[in-house]
Parts: sequence; C-alpha cells; structure tokens
Amino acid sequence: MGHSVRGLAILGSTGSIGRQTLEVVRDLRPRFRVVALAAGHNVTLLEEQAKEFSPQLLWANREADYLHQKTASGIIPARWTPMEEMVAHPDVDIVVVATVGKAGLLPTLAAVGAGKAVALANKEVLVMAGHLVVAEARRHEADLRPVDSEHSAIWQCLWGEDRKNIARIILTGSGGAFRDRTLDELERVTPEQALRHPTWQMGHKITVDSATLLNKGLEAIEAHWLFGVPFDKIEVVLHRESIIHSLVEFCDGSIKAQLGMPDMRLPIQCALTYPQRLPTGRPKRLDLGRLGSLGFSQPDMRRFPCLGLALEAGRRGGAFPAVMAAADEVAVDHFLAGHITFLDIAKVIEATLSAHPGVSDPSLEEVLAADTWARQWAEDWLRAKA
Amino acid sequence: MGHSVRGLAILGSTGSIGRQTLEVVRDLRPRFRVVALAAGHNVTLLEEQAKEFSPQLLWANREADYLHQKTASGIIPARWTPMEEMVAHPDVDIVVVATVGKAGLLPTLAAVGAGKAVALANKEVLVMAGHLVVAEARRHEADLRPVDSEHSAIWQCLWGEDRKNIARIILTGSGGAFRDRTLDELERVTPEQALRHPTWQMGHKITVDSATLLNKGLEAIEAHWLFGVPFDKIEVVLHRESIIHSLVEFCDGSIKAQLGMPDMRLPIQCALTYPQRLPTGRPKRLDLGRLGSLGFSQPDMRRFPCLGLALEAGRRGGAFPAVMAAADEVAVDHFLAGHITFLDIAKVIEATLSAHPGVSDPSLEEVLAADTWARQWAEDWLRAKA
Repeated sequence: MGHSVRGLAILGSTGSIGRQTLEVVRDLRPRFRVVALAAGHNVTLLEEQAKEFSPQLLWANREADYLHQKTASGIIPARWTPMEEMVAHPDVDIVVVATVGKAGLLPTLAAVGAGKAVALANKEVLVMAGHLVVAEARRHEADLRPVDSEHSAIWQCLWGEDRKNIARIILTGSGGAFRDRTLDELERVTPEQALRHPTWQMGHKITVDSATLLNKGLEAIEAHWLFGVPFDKIEVVLHRESIIHSLVEFCDGSIKAQLGMPDMRLPIQCALTYPQRLPTGRPKRLDLGRLGSLGFSQPDMRRFPCLGLALEAGRRGGAFPAVMAAADEVAVDHFLAGHITFLDIAKVIEATLSAHPGVSDPSLEEVLAADTWARQWAEDWLRAKA
Repeated sequence: MGHSVRGLAILGSTGSIGRQTLEVVRDLRPRFRVVALAAGHNVTLLEEQAKEFSPQLLWANREADYLHQKTASGIIPARWTPMEEMVAHPDVDIVVVATVGKAGLLPTLAAVGAGKAVALANKEVLVMAGHLVVAEARRHEADLRPVDSEHSAIWQCLWGEDRKNIARIILTGSGGAFRDRTLDELERVTPEQALRHPTWQMGHKITVDSATLLNKGLEAIEAHWLFGVPFDKIEVVLHRESIIHSLVEFCDGSIKAQLGMPDMRLPIQCALTYPQRLPTGRPKRLDLGRLGSLGFSQPDMRRFPCLGLALEAGRRGGAFPAVMAAADEVAVDHFLAGHITFLDIAKVIEATLSAHPGVSDPSLEEVLAADTWARQWAEDWLRAKA
C-alpha cells in the first residue's frame, strides 16, 4: 500500500464516469496505472484513451473490429481481452465498474470472485443481483466501494463507525428535472425536458430515472446491499441544491452527512484512494455562508410513483428488483422515442411487476432470465396497448 | 472495555452540563458508576445527587460546610476530597469537566496527568492553557474528548479519518440572541434580552458570549488545541437552526458534518461511551423534509467585534487567550449588572488585550498570573472610565 502504484481496470471507460475516472487518474499521477480499458461502442475515444494510458488489456463491446485488429497487428500494444478475464489479471488491484445496465454484472462477479477491490458505479449490478455480489465479495474478502455520490457519502460517514449502529440511512436527491411540476403538467412533459437535469450531467437513462425518482429507488436497493441495512431504515429526502450527498443516523441519535459541491470526481477519487485521502486542487470550495440555505422536502409519491414501485420491488426482493429495472429500461426507451408519456413509465413498471410470478433467492441464471422475461413482457404489453 | 462498568468523576455536577451528564448516566444504567461528584455552591442539589448516585468522593467549592460535616459524620457515606485528588482515584475512568471558568483548569491537568479520559465541557481550560493540557495529555496518553456540541461534531467527523488530512474546520453558530439586530440596536440591548438564546438553554456567561459571538472565538481556540489545526483553517459560519453542529473539510474536498436536533445529552453520551455508540430512545428524530431548510450566513465582524478579538487572541497565542477570556468575564459581569452597554464588552476586551505585554509559551503560573492581571486591569479601566 502506501505510495505503491495501484493497477486499474476501467470498464465503461468512455462513458461519463469512465472519462472522469481517467481525469482523476491524470490528476493523481503517478499513483495509478491503467492496466485495462473496456468500453461499449465509442471506439474512437477508446483508441485515444489507449494511446494516452497504454493499457495492457483492451476491449470494446460493439464496433470493435477496427480496434481489435489494431491490437492483433501490434499497432496498439494491448491484448484484446473480454471484461470477465481482464478484471482478474494479476496487475489489476481495483476494478472500476462504470458500465451501464446489466453489462457490469458478470465482470463485477468475476472481479469480486478474484478478490479485487471494486469501485462500483453501475447501479444495475446491485439492483439485479445484490445478494449474489455481496455474498461473493464476502467469500473472497473483496472490497466493494461505491462511486455514486449518495453511496460514497454514506460510505464515508461509516468510516470509523460500526455498521450495526446504523439507525437510518437518509438518501438525498435533487428531485430531478420535474420536481416542481404538478401531476397535470407531468402528463405533458417531453423527453427533451426530462433530459435537463438541474444538477448533474449524466447519461440519458439515468437522467430520466432522476426525473421519475426511480433512481432513488434503485439507490435505496443499492444501499440495502452495500451497507446491509433493511428497507425500513432507508429514507429518501429531496434536497434541491445537491450539496448534502446523503446522511446516516446512528443508534444514539447522532447523524453524519457528507457534503460538497456536486463533482463526481470526488467520490471516484475516494473509491480509488481508500483508505487514504489525497489532496487535489480540483474541487470548488463550498461556501455555506454565500450559499445561504439548503432546502429539503418529502418526495411526493403521487407525482412520482416510480419511487414507490422501486422501493416496493426492493422490499419484495428476489427477482423483483431485476424485473423492475428491466421494465424501466424498456419504458424509458419508449418515452425517449416519444411512444409513451412520462407518467406511462410507472404504468409499464407496475404492470410488469404485477405479471411476474416471483423467484426467491434467484441464481444468476434466474436473475438474467427474469430480466429477459421482463423486457419481453413490457414490450409485448406496450405493443398490445399501442 | 466492552460492557464493563466505567467509573465517572463529574466536576460541576450541579450545572447544566453536570445535570445532563447525570441524566445520561441514568439512561445508560448500569454502564456507568458515579465515583465522584464536585460542585460549585449548589449544595442542596449536590446532596440530592449524592443520595441518588452514592459517590465515594464528594466536594463543593462554596457553602460546603454543611455537606462536609455530613460526610465527616458518616450521614453521607462519601469522602470529602478536593477535585485535583478525586480525578486521580483508581476507580475513576472518565473525568467529566463541567465546571465553569478557570475552576476546571487544575483538575483537568491532574486528570490527564493521571492518564484518565477527560470529557471536557469547560471552555476556559483549553482557551487559557491549551498548550499545557494537550502536552500533558500526550505525555500520559490521556484521551481528551470534547463535550461541546460543535467540538463533538468535529470529533465525530474525524472518527476513522487521519487528522493530517484536515483542510478546514467549519464551526457553526446560531448567531445568538442578537443575530438580526443592527449596530444601532445593539447599542441599546439589555441583559434580559441577551439572556434569551434562540436555541440552547445555558448559563448566563455563555449565553452572553453567544450573543457577542465571542463564544465562537473561544470555540475556535478550543478546536485549534483539540484537533491540532491552525487558525487559518478554522472558519465560523452562522447557522440559525443549530442542526448542523459543525463540519470538517478534508484535503480531497470531501466535507463531513455531524447534525441532529439540539440536545446536549448526545455529545455528553458520545464522550462517555466512546469508542462505542449506545442506543437511546431519547433524541428527537430529525426530519429534514419537515424542517424545510437550513440557513447559513457569514458572521458580521463589525456588529460582533468580540469574535474578531477572540480569534486574534487565539492567533497571537501565549497568554493572550487567557487575557481575552478574563477581560470578557469582567466585561460580561459588568454588562449583566447594568454598568456597561453590550457593545462596551468588546471595548473592555480590546483595551485589556492592548495593554498586555504578552508572554510566549507561558507556564501554568504565568497563565494564572495573566488571568489575574487581566481581571484587575479591566476592573481598573472600567472604574477609571466610570
């Protein structure tokens, strides 16, 4: 440890979190070495990243032929390696899972199975298969480190604390693009409006999930698995300014919060440098006196039914969270394509959850089957309604 | 440790913090045993406390004959023991220093000299002689645990953190009774008005110090000594609701805060149960959503010059903090007696500080001499002005 160079595998390196991870790596040179990079389909950016960081291992999911050939011919001196294999490479100390959707699931299981520290930014991994990932991490003494600003906040508040003293986790959320809209207005909001998040610059799917508040439900499920806290001890509070990133209450009534100007590079850096903190000239300084005030409110479950549906799926457990997440993905796609309204998203999820028979303690295969089933069922239902 | 019973000496047991300490001891029975009680002059209450908690050692500063005789005759089965002696008793594990003014200084030095854990609620101890107390505590590996809500907040935020990573300490303050008064209005405020603190029920001296904001200056000096942080890394921000009790920023830009409904029993309990936390049904649950908002503002140094004077005394170090604190005590007495105006308090402190020649790295005797000198000088100056 100490000042030794840590090897990184970054899965999803061309996405928002992946790119910011590489910014942090640049800032903290020479503390980290990029051993492996994997991306979805942005091979142009992946090639640039490979040139700058010279990883030993490289991979892309789609449109990969071009880069694959360059590695095969030695023009790019990296070995073409699937994600599940690259995460277990002996030079990798920390795996950053910044993929989107279920793409991160198998690589995360492989990484914790190899005892690697995993910096987890892919929500669906724990939502779909938290029970499997946490059990596998425990079995191999692998460290799960959250990258989400909310979970990083909770994690930092727990440093030096005993998790069995947690009385309550309070997840904060900005409230998304539509926090001030009436139910009537929500009937008519457009995809363009949904994509204007008040605080964070993120991908399309997660920005819509922020607008429906489903995102906070996914985060509650993640918090449940990451910190071993039952759902009745997890609350959601809306906080417009996104300065307090989340809070933990302990059994004696003391509450800790982690806060700061919104900047994803901080939680990414925390996950990379843990258990140390490293100085950075980067963050904008929080000036509470100039800020003036921080506002809080209860989420309105009537205007944002997706939050209740996601929490309910989490409480029911088994394959329900996977079904909920898959139905949401289908619904958001159709909303962004203009096929359904914003409020229809909840209807798709609710219908799909109602139709699912339920599987208790599902295996990986059963989770993936539930995901496939839910996508198909939601598509069929939408087609039947259209 | 674990569930073993911890022995307590409570100095200042009849004051506000002392009484609340005994409430916590009652709540947490049978975790703690009261080995020693000492009070200033409220012997009636001290006798009641002695009957309830059966301490082995007892002491009062004034009007003590009545109780002293009862112990001598065996009616109260406790040994009459001066504070400096009681804190070193082998059955004492934790010394709660809840005395007021310089009364706590010698007993605190004796307690840390005996290697006891000290739960420190007496501000003047560190303000007058922080350099001596911290050095003595280090020498004897004695644990200094803050009881003030602000310092307890900072302390809790530092659990599991490395102190050398502190970038900034942000002390919050309610702003006191006169936070919304103009400078003109402050010319005419009365002692009765000064004693109406918006949040906390406390003694007269500290309530007036809250109204002048001198209290935040004292707290900055305490924080300097408790956490080893230079004054240029200590900030004060006003926070009306007194929910966020203070914050710590780390070198990577991450900020932690400790918060909760105002209740001194929580920091007292933390100092007693550390490094554990114990459940309590006591605290009012914080509901941020219902609370609505938390407000912050910069302290106005023009309306509240005492804050600047106290910080300046802290920065100059040596015996200046002791001189500042002594001059303030004299000035507050005269303000409460109706001899001087609210804004005169700062003038007394400023004049006394200007007149003091300064002593670097003062011994205990020099600190006490500076205290005596400052009281005399301030009295003389006020008499000359009258």
